[in-house]
Amino acid sequence: MREPRPLTSYRLADLLADIVDHVRPAFGKGKVAGYIPELAKVNPRKFGIAVATLDGADVAAGDADEPFSLQSVTKLFALQLALNRGGDDIWTRVGKEPSGTAFNHLAILEAEQGTPRNPFVNAGALTVTDYLMGRSGDVAKLVLEYIRASAGGISGDIDEAVAASEIATAHQNRAIAHILKVHGTIDHAPDAVVNAYCRQCAITASVRDLARAALPLAMDGFSLHSGESILAQRMVRRVNAVMMTCGMYDSTGSFAYRVGLPAKSGVGGGIVAVAPGLGSIAVWSPELDRAGNSLVGTIALELFAQNTHWSVL
Amino acid sequence: MREPRPLTSYRLADLLADIVDHVRPAFGKGKVAGYIPELAKVNPRKFGIAVATLDGADVAAGDADEPFSLQSVTKLFALQLALNRGGDDIWTRVGKEPSGTAFNHLAILEAEQGTPRNPFVNAGALTVTDYLMGRSGDVAKLVLEYIRASAGGISGDIDEAVAASEIATAHQNRAIAHILKVHGTIDHAPDAVVNAYCRQCAITASVRDLARAALPLAMDGFSLHSGESILAQRMVRRVNAVMMTCGMYDSTGSFAYRVGLPAKSGVGGGIVAVAPGLGSIAVWSPELDRAGNSLVGTIALELFAQNTHWSVL
Amino acid sequence: MREPRPLTSYRLADLLADIVDHVRPAFGKGKVAGYIPELAKVNPRKFGIAVATLDGADVAAGDADEPFSLQSVTKLFALQLALNRGGDDIWTRVGKEPSGTAFNHLAILEAEQGTPRNPFVNAGALTVTDYLMGRSGDVAKLVLEYIRASAGGISGDIDEAVAASEIATAHQNRAIAHILKVHGTIDHAPDAVVNAYCRQCAITASVRDLARAALPLAMDGFSLHSGESILAQRMVRRVNAVMMTCGMYDSTGSFAYRVGLPAKSGVGGGIVAVAPGLGSIAVWSPELDRAGNSLVGTIALELFAQNTHWSVL
Amino acid sequence: MREPRPLTSYRLADLLADIVDHVRPAFGKGKVAGYIPELAKVNPRKFGIAVATLDGADVAAGDADEPFSLQSVTKLFALQLALNRGGDDIWTRVGKEPSGTAFNHLAILEAEQGTPRNPFVNAGALTVTDYLMGRSGDVAKLVLEYIRASAGGISGDIDEAVAASEIATAHQNRAIAHILKVHGTIDHAPDAVVNAYCRQCAITASVRDLARAALPLAMDGFSLHSGESILAQRMVRRVNAVMMTCGMYDSTGSFAYRVGLPAKSGVGGGIVAVAPGLGSIAVWSPELDRAGNSLVGTIALELFAQNTHWSVL
Repeated sequence: MREPRPLTSYRLADLLADIVDHVRPAFGKGKVAGYIPELAKVNPRKFGIAVATLDGADVAAGDADEPFSLQSVTKLFALQLALNRGGDDIWTRVGKEPSGTAFNHLAILEAEQGTPRNPFVNAGALTVTDYLMGRSGDVAKLVLEYIRASAGGISGDIDEAVAASEIATAHQNRAIAHILKVHGTIDHAPDAVVNAYCRQCAITASVRDLARAALPLAMDGFSLHSGESILAQRMVRRVNAVMMTCGMYDSTGSFAYRVGLPAKSGVGGGIVAVAPGLGSIAVWSPELDRAGNSLVGTIALELFAQNTHWSVL
Repeated sequence: MREPRPLTSYRLADLLADIVDHVRPAFGKGKVAGYIPELAKVNPRKFGIAVATLDGADVAAGDADEPFSLQSVTKLFALQLALNRGGDDIWTRVGKEPSGTAFNHLAILEAEQGTPRNPFVNAGALTVTDYLMGRSGDVAKLVLEYIRASAGGISGDIDEAVAASEIATAHQNRAIAHILKVHGTIDHAPDAVVNAYCRQCAITASVRDLARAALPLAMDGFSLHSGESILAQRMVRRVNAVMMTCGMYDSTGSFAYRVGLPAKSGVGGGIVAVAPGLGSIAVWSPELDRAGNSLVGTIALELFAQNTHWSVL
Repeated sequence: MREPRPLTSYRLADLLADIVDHVRPAFGKGKVAGYIPELAKVNPRKFGIAVATLDGADVAAGDADEPFSLQSVTKLFALQLALNRGGDDIWTRVGKEPSGTAFNHLAILEAEQGTPRNPFVNAGALTVTDYLMGRSGDVAKLVLEYIRASAGGISGDIDEAVAASEIATAHQNRAIAHILKVHGTIDHAPDAVVNAYCRQCAITASVRDLARAALPLAMDGFSLHSGESILAQRMVRRVNAVMMTCGMYDSTGSFAYRVGLPAKSGVGGGIVAVAPGLGSIAVWSPELDRAGNSLVGTIALELFAQNTHWSVL
Repeated sequence: MREPRPLTSYRLADLLADIVDHVRPAFGKGKVAGYIPELAKVNPRKFGIAVATLDGADVAAGDADEPFSLQSVTKLFALQLALNRGGDDIWTRVGKEPSGTAFNHLAILEAEQGTPRNPFVNAGALTVTDYLMGRSGDVAKLVLEYIRASAGGISGDIDEAVAASEIATAHQNRAIAHILKVHGTIDHAPDAVVNAYCRQCAITASVRDLARAALPLAMDGFSLHSGESILAQRMVRRVNAVMMTCGMYDSTGSFAYRVGLPAKSGVGGGIVAVAPGLGSIAVWSPELDRAGNSLVGTIALELFAQNTHWSVL
């Protein structure tokens, strides 16, 4: 029987190098996100993968040190900040259940009286951002600092050009924010919340940064870099549960089958996955599948899970 | 750090006995399912729990040998039969993604042209039943035999009184079946499919049977009782993924947090959970929470996961 | 300014003959209803038009004496029977407002707890049929007799072949009936209601019959044929209001613009329209537009309204 | 049989005075619109009614010369302007069919790809305002001038305090405008469109002004005041059809039964109705029924229609 286990850095390095070779034929089958003009400029053939393990090592291959736009992956860290700030307080504003597919997101929000289904749909992420605005005027910087602290450093920053591009075209998110305001779900002005959220999404990091930043989620909240717990164990469980059931847009079920790890995806082409008790993995490749997840990145994670038996299912 | 591991039967027996004691105060806080008249007759204070482990042992406590109505838990075994019969064929008729909450199940089915979101919503389960009708006229018996073979025996049977009670009141399922027929999702007559499905739901088993029957899902498909694989490894992964993301009605996200195991629930008050590489657990307690899952059973599984560190998240 | 007025039979005969000539080029642009196999056999080039006026005359042209399948036009008469039977009682089960377009009919029914939006959507018509079943076991015959009495005779009957064809394929209506049963909107068994409704829809009549049968709706409920009121004046107003706002499927607004008369349409290609204080008009042509209304029939009514100034808008 | 006919001013004056007396007991049964703070300040016991007839006379009773906030009644005039500007061009952006009830307005807009169902739902009215912004930077003034020209003068103006109050709280409309922008339905910036729309809604007029301003809709587009046609006859028919099927929020069907005239309502408590070939009627009373229409105003129109036989149904 398969038996998940920590791998030596040596074996991991070989595996990641193999994965870089194996995913190449899949380039060109997906599409770079086009709705944010600035994001569309990225080289679609980029691919990076990195793994952080419990012993503090990280192993990487491909374009693993090039910062890219984290986009929705930042929701993972904003949620942790919200849980750190107010514990279960955030759940009075946001649900914890999957939302089903995309055809009726506004309909669901309307039918459920402005309560977002979970913190990873945009309505929920805007609500988390609004919640964090009560703590700091500059949520993007707060999230960036949290990633930096979790990762023990970060090679990226806030990409102001991407932020400006998103702010200029964020009509869907503005619609959502106004619906949230109608129902009293958010406290701040809808435009301010959307602007803060767009800047948060424009944070960049490399897959190496990202794998390191997610490692505490594989270690019951303990951060190797700070030498202390940065998130309570039960909050870690909560975050992993939301990732497992809501993290991959409308492919959460398929991803659970193919990869079997809690994960969060972004339209920048990044995915970060957590193997509790084993390590964390980040991939980046800009071309997306129809659900909006990195097409090559998902294949890479699938290969990784098959070879490591790190899948939890 | 927590470290999931196989437990000795001795420690397990103590733990299950403790759980029986601890859950008692929660009796009376839920409601026995009322919409099937025959089911409403059950004693609401029943509680049983059983664990099957990789070494072939099973440990149990409470009303662990009393057969109860499996209801939707049977969907777990019908799905396995469908995968065994036609491999991925069933996915041309049924999706694999969570459905979101209950407010608009028919709306989703209508909007998605009669394709059920996953095999565990009723529309999907009816489709699986219809699919199995192509193999056998008596699907309930087929499912019963599969459970019996997986468990190496079963103390229950088909409860014809419950089946008749469900058949007489199954208007919601008949509505769904006719919608499925409009869209060509099912082959057989809607009434015949609903009747077969109601009989399937009326299968009874004890938690000891149930834990044993689910054990192959924790062992890559290998059955200790038959000494051979009863389900391909990748099909096991698929089943566990569907359980993890769709198994607990509209509390899938909450359950992932509280218990962290792939599981399937039924309105008869049964829940079966799988800990890949470790074992399988079944609980039964008839009172349901608002989402339709056993209230006491969920508490019991939560206690179990906390004490064993078997959670995958 | 335009001035609506009663027309002499002589002028009407000329007008109807002109209309028969003018509509010819539109043949072939619509589609005969295909979902009821038996209905699909009709000659698509049939066209008939008839007008009944307050003086008891009726004028007709084209295939005006050939019975055709009334289908949903029967809802107009079933509603009158329900109002005659129990006054406003029926409005405790059915609404009176338009339903919007077709994309989400089941969703609306589900969201509104099984209360049909109006008596002309199928859910509402099934509810009316169920209501009439409390009065007579054979609703189709009841409706046929009402049409016969209103028209002072009828050349058609119940077409049992069409009824059987509909009964065999009525999955959408069976789905609706079961939803109605779940919510307690109907009293009788869903299958019995659907069967009764299908037979009601299979009533045949000629446009001459139909125009005569609707004439009381233009005369405050007075029937020339029986010499007495067959429907209270305020009930007539109610029926005309439902026709005006809900009578033409999802083209009610367009029809109000093009024709400007309360009307009811059926997928058999018939439309009956009422000009209060002036007369009633029936047309028949089997080819339907995308909304399911007779394409040529609508053009004919538009020409009629333009030339007579009978539009109420 | 009832026979609609022009009434002498003398008889009309008596009738309106009677109506003022009869509606008094209904005061206190409705609620003044509360969501626009400035509007909530109005005296709820105000009531005015005015009728304009084809001979150029107008008769009024009650608070008939006091300007009130027209709100959605302005949609009636904005639509006329759009039709005057570009003919049927506006129908490429907005539909003409009723929208059903309120539970899922955003859902419908989302499902129909950002095409508003008709020009009288807010999404449609915002689209019309956007369309007029291509003609003039100050749409509110444009609409005010059109009302003034149609009425031959106006006693009201744009109420800047109400406009500011609406602009500050228009989150629902801002949500809608951003959805419209996502789908390309509107050309201008969503915030600018909402602001222009709020100012348009803040136009005030008396019922005497309003009845006069709507009179051309009863006269095939001819304006007594300017001595010429201000709207093509077929556009008048279109406007009346939209009023008849979509003019009274979610009570369009009930209103057609009770009053039987094309009409448009506003949350300021105003309703204007058109009796083609006979005259136009305006009422004002701030307390609203549950559908958002003036409760006392609807009763007044019902009494008026009963006594004059001006109903078209």
